[in-house]
Amino acid sequence: MGKEAIVSGDVGPIWMDLARFRQGGKKEVKKETGLGLSFKKDENFGEWYSEVVVNSEMIEYYDISGCYILRPWAISIWEILQTFFDAEIKKMEIKNCYFPLFVSPGALQKEKDHIEGFAPEVAWVTKSGKSDLEVPVAIRPTSETVMYPYYSKWIRGHRDLPLKLNQWCNVVRWEFSNPTPFIRSREFLWQEGHTAFATKEEADTEVLQILELYRRIYEEFLAIPVIRGKKTEMEKFAGGLYTTSVEAFIPNTGRGIQGATSHCLGQNFAKMFEINFENDKGERCMVWQNSWAYSTRTIGVMVMVHGDDKGLVLPPKVAALQVVVVPVPYKDADTKGIFDACIETVTALSGAGIRAKADLRDNYSPGWKYSDWEMKGVPIRIEIGPRDLANNQVRVVRRDSGEKSDISRVFLVEQVKGILDKIHENLFEVAKQKRDACIQIARTWDEFVKALGEKKMILAPWSDEGNVEKEVKERTKGELGAAKSLCTPFDQPELPEGTKCFVSGKPAKKWTYWGRSY
Amino acid sequence: MGKEAIVSGDVGPIWMDLARFRQGGKKEVKKETGLGLSFKKDENFGEWYSEVVVNSEMIEYYDISGCYILRPWAISIWEILQTFFDAEIKKMEIKNCYFPLFVSPGALQKEKDHIEGFAPEVAWVTKSGKSDLEVPVAIRPTSETVMYPYYSKWIRGHRDLPLKLNQWCNVVRWEFSNPTPFIRSREFLWQEGHTAFATKEEADTEVLQILELYRRIYEEFLAIPVIRGKKTEMEKFAGGLYTTSVEAFIPNTGRGIQGATSHCLGQNFAKMFEINFENDKGERCMVWQNSWAYSTRTIGVMVMVHGDDKGLVLPPKVAALQVVVVPVPYKDADTKGIFDACIETVTALSGAGIRAKADLRDNYSPGWKYSDWEMKGVPIRIEIGPRDLANNQVRVVRRDSGEKSDISRVFLVEQVKGILDKIHENLFEVAKQKRDACIQIARTWDEFVKALGEKKMILAPWSDEGNVEKEVKERTKGELGAAKSLCTPFDQPELPEGTKCFVSGKPAKKWTYWGRSY
Repeated sequence: MGKEAIVSGDVGPIWMDLARFRQGGKKEVKKETGLGLSFKKDENFGEWYSEVVVNSEMIEYYDISGCYILRPWAISIWEILQTFFDAEIKKMEIKNCYFPLFVSPGALQKEKDHIEGFAPEVAWVTKSGKSDLEVPVAIRPTSETVMYPYYSKWIRGHRDLPLKLNQWCNVVRWEFSNPTPFIRSREFLWQEGHTAFATKEEADTEVLQILELYRRIYEEFLAIPVIRGKKTEMEKFAGGLYTTSVEAFIPNTGRGIQGATSHCLGQNFAKMFEINFENDKGERCMVWQNSWAYSTRTIGVMVMVHGDDKGLVLPPKVAALQVVVVPVPYKDADTKGIFDACIETVTALSGAGIRAKADLRDNYSPGWKYSDWEMKGVPIRIEIGPRDLANNQVRVVRRDSGEKSDISRVFLVEQVKGILDKIHENLFEVAKQKRDACIQIARTWDEFVKALGEKKMILAPWSDEGNVEKEVKERTKGELGAAKSLCTPFDQPELPEGTKCFVSGKPAKKWTYWGRSY
Repeated sequence: MGKEAIVSGDVGPIWMDLARFRQGGKKEVKKETGLGLSFKKDENFGEWYSEVVVNSEMIEYYDISGCYILRPWAISIWEILQTFFDAEIKKMEIKNCYFPLFVSPGALQKEKDHIEGFAPEVAWVTKSGKSDLEVPVAIRPTSETVMYPYYSKWIRGHRDLPLKLNQWCNVVRWEFSNPTPFIRSREFLWQEGHTAFATKEEADTEVLQILELYRRIYEEFLAIPVIRGKKTEMEKFAGGLYTTSVEAFIPNTGRGIQGATSHCLGQNFAKMFEINFENDKGERCMVWQNSWAYSTRTIGVMVMVHGDDKGLVLPPKVAALQVVVVPVPYKDADTKGIFDACIETVTALSGAGIRAKADLRDNYSPGWKYSDWEMKGVPIRIEIGPRDLANNQVRVVRRDSGEKSDISRVFLVEQVKGILDKIHENLFEVAKQKRDACIQIARTWDEFVKALGEKKMILAPWSDEGNVEKEVKERTKGELGAAKSLCTPFDQPELPEGTKCFVSGKPAKKWTYWGRSY
């Protein structure tokens, strides 16, 4: 094992860094020469995105379109989010379980509205080896129809409630519209929670408790501002009663993106799957159900919101490596002293629970290493050269702002902790400013069309009529895709008496966000 | 929420306990009356097993045969094993990743021996929605062929090595031979590690490091003795160089069971997938590879080895609930005092990191609760009645031995910790004695046949000839299934000069275990 082996920190062997440059994405040649990204975020967002996820070693493209390899650099983020969310739901006495990947046609098709929503995307297994299956089996696109026949078996009396289960698993939706790593893939990883209650009140309460956890994932971990709100009837979960969601926004494309959803299913599935119980008065009642999920899409939103022309930008809370320490030897300076200082720095930081490692590769220049770690989005780079060694200080460089500062090694740990917090706050603030700058109020159709053309997320007074939504989709069709309602925010601006719907001119009932979306 | 809500401990809402008795397995009526199991382990092992896994709430049978629902009581065990193993491999600088569920026919069929081993069991997706896929895709039975095309892309130079990845995922093997929950199912959960090294020495070393972790899972967590050894050429992993495994034994059926495998793949896959690198002398070399896995089968072996006629018996280290506290009120005794004592007891134990909870259900008798928690295999039951309250003591009952003892509440925590350790040791010792009692040395074919008839695991001197293995399979065919080699143990008894093979009579080269297996 090489030098790096003696350095603690959990980002693993140095080979990975070199491997990336040998491997390359589409731009292999450029990568080999270490030139970084060949596309700019503001000029060619789509190409920039796929180059960043590949060159930062989060994604490898796979030989089945719409499927992607999630490399350790991506999975480490997923694991951090998973650890947080899993602990939180366990506090809520939600239990993990695992239901089968396969669902029988009978169960799958039991709830008509629901299956209508998924049918075209369902993948079917029809053969094993060379022989046909007697009955083809579907691969779960989501597990309502997989689980609920058993909820009906398990729930008999009021003492069996609430029933609160969650599973971490893969699901498959064989989509054909532009697959995008993390954002829209044919297989993805997620958690899906499925709960049943005796009363609607309990279900309503949980819907919002879970939505709050999703908000925290985006705002407290990924440093991405989200809007909490309710989906319209047309956009709600197929077969459910109502859907709440956290909605993010990608300024570069002017598209909203659904971050995670927490659904109240009401009693619709309970009716179909006969999930009922005897209450304490001995009466038969139907349960009230919720289902809720977030997926690896979270990672894609993070890349789109924070990434820049140098590559990935990782919010400190989800960075597998928070600090990389690079030695900057100089001519006949005390190289060993510098290397030792790097290792001591990493040891000090790791001891304080900061995820740090030293890049002691002897076959790359410091400058090359800088752009290497910038590509991977490591929040803080620490440089140690002869001058720093002499002054018992280190040079700290922030990935988010490029800001440089010299820190005395005496105050290393506290200062680095403080800077990591600042980076998180700054990432969130900048993202929020950019997002807010894209929010446009529109009171008329003309204002709406103008704002849509300017890639805005539009807040408009709406009459709450379904045909208005249809009309909006109809009239905004085009190569960019139609606009639609994103959500009705819980945080409603005042709606003065007499305010009219931006489309129908009828009395407006609520403010709703509209725009193009992923 | 009910009383239980005020009690800490992580086994969750009381409804689950009641749910089990409402839900029932095949034996619903009996269960409703709380009579427990209707089959005895020694009389009808097969029926006993499926009744235990259902009635203990680990498994629910599913409407697709060979697929099973893993309920929280099972998943909690899986999570404990996962936490241990994941931390250990991270120390080894093995990184988690996630490769797709689907594999293209081209990649799947690249390594001929390998695919021959799996082809008949591979499930194929041929349709999405109503339309046929242009090219059907296979569902991974294991991921060598999914991953290695990318290893070839990622590995260019010696600095890219070692490449050490692992993933936690589901795999599918559409088997038709008697499906059994945990032991043989069409979909199962596992981890699969895939590593590549510059030298065979490094690969050989890792194979044994991983095998040691598998041994610890069985012996230190599941309290099951295993034999570490090497598979024969005929039984090794299809396409690999050699396979090591930990082998357990089920005395009731007289069958060996492969607990987990750690394979050295040699350079065979490297050749097929062109995984090579330039060494420091600038020469092209092929990598040396390993793959290794353990699955939810571990849980099934635990049930088979430790379970008894009262139900499941959980080794303390993997028990989601280690101690259940049951109040035993009596006539006009101080019921509130007793309940408070139960809650205080749980609080004290939980505070010391022991997973404990009080069963304060008011609609069941203490006796009913006893058999309820015995069915679920909770290692320790604590009873608190008027006498205990008066003497400031608690009554402790061991699930493994039924042993009862009174403990002063002053020494509660230390004593309970000690008893949990004793239970683990006892479970292991008893399992080892039973296993050892089934090991029979056979030097001749007649001794072999006799021992096989007595459901033994047979240790026999073998000439290391493949045709001997074929002959053994041939001559032992029958409704119980043929016998085969289980493994050649690393721990080899002395093999005196002139010892003959138990079948061919030729000079024996090694001692090997033989028997029927799962």
